[in-house]
Amino acid sequence: MSLRVVFLGTAGSIPTPKRNLSAIVIRRKEELLLFDCGEGIQRQMIQAKVGFHRKTKIFITHLHGDHILGLPGLFQTMSLWNRRKKLEVHGPRGIKAFVDAMKQTVQFTLTFPMEIFEIKNSGVMCNEKQYEVYAVWADHSVQSLAYALIEKPRPGKFYPEKARSIGVPEGPLWSKLQQGCPIKLSNGRTVKPEEVVDPPRLGRKIVYTGDTKPSEDIIKLADKADLLIHEATFSDELQERAHEDKHSTPSQAAKVAKKARVRRLVLTHISARYKDPTILLEQAKKIFPNVCVAEDFMRIDIPFFGH
Amino acid sequence: MSLRVVFLGTAGSIPTPKRNLSAIVIRRKEELLLFDCGEGIQRQMIQAKVGFHRKTKIFITHLHGDHILGLPGLFQTMSLWNRRKKLEVHGPRGIKAFVDAMKQTVQFTLTFPMEIFEIKNSGVMCNEKQYEVYAVWADHSVQSLAYALIEKPRPGKFYPEKARSIGVPEGPLWSKLQQGCPIKLSNGRTVKPEEVVDPPRLGRKIVYTGDTKPSEDIIKLADKADLLIHEATFSDELQERAHEDKHSTPSQAAKVAKKARVRRLVLTHISARYKDPTILLEQAKKIFPNVCVAEDFMRIDIPFFGH
Repeated sequence: MSLRVVFLGTAGSIPTPKRNLSAIVIRRKEELLLFDCGEGIQRQMIQAKVGFHRKTKIFITHLHGDHILGLPGLFQTMSLWNRRKKLEVHGPRGIKAFVDAMKQTVQFTLTFPMEIFEIKNSGVMCNEKQYEVYAVWADHSVQSLAYALIEKPRPGKFYPEKARSIGVPEGPLWSKLQQGCPIKLSNGRTVKPEEVVDPPRLGRKIVYTGDTKPSEDIIKLADKADLLIHEATFSDELQERAHEDKHSTPSQAAKVAKKARVRRLVLTHISARYKDPTILLEQAKKIFPNVCVAEDFMRIDIPFFGH
Repeated sequence: MSLRVVFLGTAGSIPTPKRNLSAIVIRRKEELLLFDCGEGIQRQMIQAKVGFHRKTKIFITHLHGDHILGLPGLFQTMSLWNRRKKLEVHGPRGIKAFVDAMKQTVQFTLTFPMEIFEIKNSGVMCNEKQYEVYAVWADHSVQSLAYALIEKPRPGKFYPEKARSIGVPEGPLWSKLQQGCPIKLSNGRTVKPEEVVDPPRLGRKIVYTGDTKPSEDIIKLADKADLLIHEATFSDELQERAHEDKHSTPSQAAKVAKKARVRRLVLTHISARYKDPTILLEQAKKIFPNVCVAEDFMRIDIPFFGH
């Protein structure tokens, strides 16, 4: 099952000719999960061809303009395209007031139902059959969240020909074996699941920090993630500034990645001062080698690994 | 004195990879006059290198999202750049409520004073020493304005050597002649202004319609304009749709230009359905030949003509 991350906006606070304001979108099968929605994201979505009609959930990290000002335009364009599917929006307290204020002062009507969830506590934000989205508090200058998309383990591959050769009749006994339960045949033989089914496949995990200082809660959230998307607004030289503004440096992001034993790290929310982000990459690489700096429209496909 | 129009966003309602949402900026000497501010305009301003610190006035035509949703991000980026100069914002009733709602629900503080003017009647919106901005009601689905930048006539060129050769002493008599008044020398001779001064130079005039059906008031406003920037959302084939939504077609815009005897016409607010806008151009050209279709980042310098 495909799981693709597309970086729609990778700028920190101020856009640049190459970097739009913040957002990433995860496409999982036919569904979109959009994390943050800075100004201009609807246009980035058009360029990236991700579509406005899909099943979509939006997760906002915090209420700074560079992370939310793309929402009203996105809603409006979805309506101009006559979207009908419900849209879920999750975000910290205040997100409802923002959307309501928009509805009242900018003239637009929605063609689709929208449900807004204000997050008051960390935990599971949405619990779907195949995945959940988990949120923890980040450490930023305003109330801010970090999110993890966590796929649930899936039953291992079932081998019908093996089951048949042992003499298990097709039907409920197959299901039981697939679910990991041993069964007894009418001839008295016990069949163990591992005889006909591979071990369960772990799901994949993607973590997006939003704006934050390095955080123990995020390290826990990102434990063994396939992909950690961590902000790195300032280079190591500006660590003091990063500390004051509650942002991170490449070395700090890399330390989080290392402690969390993630597979891969991507740095984003890059300050406009870094026209060439090589310096950020080099600083992170010293601590965590499997790292890159995000670019707008960069795509990363997350494979299943053999566990 | 330089007078340059830069098209920052030329899309109608929905952006495209090539067209941002609406705005044009006029740079007159060191000052900026921004007309409309669709989502993404701060980034377009960065790309066009127009600057965030200049003396700036903003004129909003109407409160549809594609014309105003770039305002809060622009204010925020101006503040991040530590702008100090006052910012004037003019727009229809409701613009104050929009900005106030933004201030209350999105967390940002302004580093500069801002004055918001809600326009209740057509007329002169700002009256500067060298120019005025005049607004009339357009004909759109919501209260909407069209604007004209009108430079005031300037005294004709004064020729000091001619004045000296006639015997006019430097000083107050020179000023009188420059202002168009005849004077009398001590020897009894009357000097007419035209002996030492060229005729007054007319100012230049640029008209921007915002969203509108063809309108008699706009024809009057645009009379003999150097440049008319008229919306042409739909092609002639969709005239009925244009009528319903209170937009214009290329032929309608061209007729307005012809009736107003403008020097040049630019079509903008182009629907996303026209990937190639040649059809719009051809339809307008049949009626008004000196026309082009706007593109993002297109620049037009407006010269003085010999009047």
